Amino acid sequence: MSKSFAGNFFEDFELHQDVPCPTPRRLGSGEVAQYIALTGDRTARFCGELGHIHPLLLFHQVLSQTVRHVSLNAIANLGYAQLVFSQPVSTGQTVHTAAEVIGLKENSSQRSGIVWLKTTARLSSGDLVLSFVRWVMVRKRGSETTEFLNSPIVPVLQQRVCPDSLHIEHLEPLPTASQTGGKWTYEDYSVGERIDHHDGHTITPGEHMSFTRLFQNSARVHFDALATQSKPLVFGGYPMSIGYAQMLNGLENRLGLVAINSGTHAHPVHAGDTLYSRTEIIEMDPLGDATVGALRCRLQVCKNINPADHPDTTFTTRDEALVLELDIWELVSKTTQPHRSHP
Amino acid sequence: MSKSFAGNFFEDFELHQDVPCPTPRRLGSGEVAQYIALTGDRTARFCGELGHIHPLLLFHQVLSQTVRHVSLNAIANLGYAQLVFSQPVSTGQTVHTAAEVIGLKENSSQRSGIVWLKTTARLSSGDLVLSFVRWVMVRKRGSETTEFLNSPIVPVLQQRVCPDSLHIEHLEPLPTASQTGGKWTYEDYSVGERIDHHDGHTITPGEHMSFTRLFQNSARVHFDALATQSKPLVFGGYPMSIGYAQMLNGLENRLGLVAINSGTHAHPVHAGDTLYSRTEIIEMDPLGDATVGALRCRLQVCKNINPADHPDTTFTTRDEALVLELDIWELVSKTTQPHRSHP
Amino acid sequence: MSKSFAGNFFEDFELHQDVPCPTPRRLGSGEVAQYIALTGDRTARFCGELGHIHPLLLFHQVLSQTVRHVSLNAIANLGYAQLVFSQPVSTGQTVHTAAEVIGLKENSSQRSGIVWLKTTARLSSGDLVLSFVRWVMVRKRGSETTEFLNSPIVPVLQQRVCPDSLHIEHLEPLPTASQTGGKWTYEDYSVGERIDHHDGHTITPGEHMSFTRLFQNSARVHFDALATQSKPLVFGGYPMSIGYAQMLNGLENRLGLVAINSGTHAHPVHAGDTLYSRTEIIEMDPLGDATVGALRCRLQVCKNINPADHPDTTFTTRDEALVLELDIWELVSKTTQPHRSHP
Repeated sequence: MSKSFAGNFFEDFELHQDVPCPTPRRLGSGEVAQYIALTGDRTARFCGELGHIHPLLLFHQVLSQTVRHVSLNAIANLGYAQLVFSQPVSTGQTVHTAAEVIGLKENSSQRSGIVWLKTTARLSSGDLVLSFVRWVMVRKRGSETTEFLNSPIVPVLQQRVCPDSLHIEHLEPLPTASQTGGKWTYEDYSVGERIDHHDGHTITPGEHMSFTRLFQNSARVHFDALATQSKPLVFGGYPMSIGYAQMLNGLENRLGLVAINSGTHAHPVHAGDTLYSRTEIIEMDPLGDATVGALRCRLQVCKNINPADHPDTTFTTRDEALVLELDIWELVSKTTQPHRSHP
Repeated sequence: MSKSFAGNFFEDFELHQDVPCPTPRRLGSGEVAQYIALTGDRTARFCGELGHIHPLLLFHQVLSQTVRHVSLNAIANLGYAQLVFSQPVSTGQTVHTAAEVIGLKENSSQRSGIVWLKTTARLSSGDLVLSFVRWVMVRKRGSETTEFLNSPIVPVLQQRVCPDSLHIEHLEPLPTASQTGGKWTYEDYSVGERIDHHDGHTITPGEHMSFTRLFQNSARVHFDALATQSKPLVFGGYPMSIGYAQMLNGLENRLGLVAINSGTHAHPVHAGDTLYSRTEIIEMDPLGDATVGALRCRLQVCKNINPADHPDTTFTTRDEALVLELDIWELVSKTTQPHRSHP
Repeated sequence: MSKSFAGNFFEDFELHQDVPCPTPRRLGSGEVAQYIALTGDRTARFCGELGHIHPLLLFHQVLSQTVRHVSLNAIANLGYAQLVFSQPVSTGQTVHTAAEVIGLKENSSQRSGIVWLKTTARLSSGDLVLSFVRWVMVRKRGSETTEFLNSPIVPVLQQRVCPDSLHIEHLEPLPTASQTGGKWTYEDYSVGERIDHHDGHTITPGEHMSFTRLFQNSARVHFDALATQSKPLVFGGYPMSIGYAQMLNGLENRLGLVAINSGTHAHPVHAGDTLYSRTEIIEMDPLGDATVGALRCRLQVCKNINPADHPDTTFTTRDEALVLELDIWELVSKTTQPHRSHP
């Protein structure tokens, strides 16, 4: 039997199993620069003096650490829930990931099943930095029926992260308006407000592959043109990061996302597609008397259609143009910080 | 009104206005490696033990910090003057930029105007690292005439940076000949001398976009294939850095540019173009008894024509092949440094 | 005479000559991230807390430092021998290279000759980190016969690095099975065993150029589409690193290669080619009672054919599909390390 690993199938997962998550990864200045170069992200907190790692850089790294033992044979990434960033990761720190199977359900086709995983990421110190639940549809190895066809185990998941659970410590110092260039603060936004972000980003063949490999994601469908009829699939994390980077236009005073309530990769993306995005504010929470408030944002990323050109259209995940819908909690400064004497 | 920002128009600028320059940026090992990978620069001072940031990496970062509030609606970058690098930036330091409007002139077409900006970049300590004047042609928002049509305010600019103003401290230790591989020193050059640098660099679609985003330059014309009829424009900083990297062949013992006297982006560059360059020495200054002398170089970058194949041709900014002409002060060691025992 | 350098020809080399190797290079987090993003390497030791530089990143950097004075006019890289990694390089250290001519032989065509170089790389402290012999075929400048046609000087080279010469200190702590995700240890392998690694990697135009420039390799044939009839040649180091990265599938508990016995770049690679690889274990050595054993591996990298689809085919360097054959000593943990309490 060959020693090379073709990935786990549905039958290989057991309830409460600890799935290996290679490989612990040090995140440094190199990853930060690469992330900025490939996405164009300009969020002030993640490119300046603080040396804090971008939350989505962390998320993609942690998710990718689960690829080899969870999703090499995945048919689809079905969703995320209860994703909370607990504390910032600083340049030079190393991230270790663990994943536990918490749900199993065989599909009625009996060709695949759904696996739910509780994933946690920690620093070498043991401090928790990120946790979430993710579920994926995985191929079955054989045709024999499993117990999870008739007795599925489906975890109960929260619809959204409760604002009380958001981590808003570790935010000082807040960036000043002159550092962000933005004039809008928490009080300026309102529920139901829509922001079209205008800027387009065309995906090139090499960049999406570099982005995916940056996180050591090794799912072959992203890299092998022969095996994909010259259409390697773009890793779902890339439109997420591109959309989030575009979203800065209109949310310049954001501190960075602190939770993901849910996410849907609605349609595939390939090199050559141009991505645009739109945000809708769907809930607000002042977080008591904190210096920041929380905006719950529905970020929609579209391909080859700029929502700004269709102000009267509401996109849904059924629209082929919509590639990603992400429901996140974002923090925004409540009042513009005093202009610090420069610098 | 949407919160997303479409950029300033000529009417939005006022004399002596401080223009926001988001976002302060930490420059680290990641930016250094990315810069080398995308340009091929081999200047000894900017890849070795010193950890000094390449002057053009710094310049592009600072210029890009002015993009959102100055040049989103720019028609053309008209020029640079009086650009002086005051002291090196070290890996890990953060750069903050400020820009003040010092000139305004409405064009006779009444559709656009010229804005002059004095731009300065400082470390978090407050130390000045770079200053320059830049002027750009910006679209007008409306058709109403401004006072700057008949009463333009045009700053008087020096034709070149005076050699006395060049910063030649912070140069020790100079690289040795064995470290640079070059045998030519200051005394070997002469005014009027031309050096064709031979090497060609073909621009690929992803790399020029990564380069531009590395500096968080967000001008959409560089990134959106749909909005540009599949011809995204290459950021002017990229041919500058490529030409400067190519220029090392024949100037191996350079210490790095310390001033830009003027610069003209003569013709556009797109992915697929191959760039070549030529240098002419147009002035020399021994800088007293310093260990280095200053060469004033006219660097010409051409597309799809190698000047080395046309030794008798003099290119001017009217030639479509010439994409960039840059007039800089470069420092070169006066005598080959003693071969330090290895290493 | 122009100051730009067109490279050395066969006649320019003398026995025992010290060839300049510009430029000393600091290897930091930026180079590490770029290497991972461009190759997908996931070897645990080179992306985690230790901050050790990947041996092939080091090798490509050192080799590239010899390009300007050795191989600008090379017709072919003929081989490597006796390549030994003496100690790890840590993030932030600077590598200095020296090369001495140890063999010269003019070819019977009298148009070229072979140059053998002993190359050594050291840290600024003087510590040796890498040494090897390399030989290249270099064009002659003229038609005059040299003494090395009739009196060639050909060094005697070892067929393989003796296991006694492998450096196995500096390995603690070994990664745990949960960190690598692999279950196979030294004892599980056997001589004659073949592992097909499955994953394909399609080379894109920009990425192979970025990879080559990352090491400041300036051989024009890799970068200039005009001079190469739109077929820039991929730098031989890239298939080497891609193949080595793919090889992890089945060798998850490897510690990293410690020697290269020989290497053959059998056929050229261009953008658009998809690479796959296969490993054969050709010798094993338990290294006494060390915690690791040595596997001598023959890594074969193929283009546009996946060896996994041809299990009964044995590829040789005469097959056009085979682009690289590399004979290396790899270290693998002898027993799975105890699962350290997380993390």
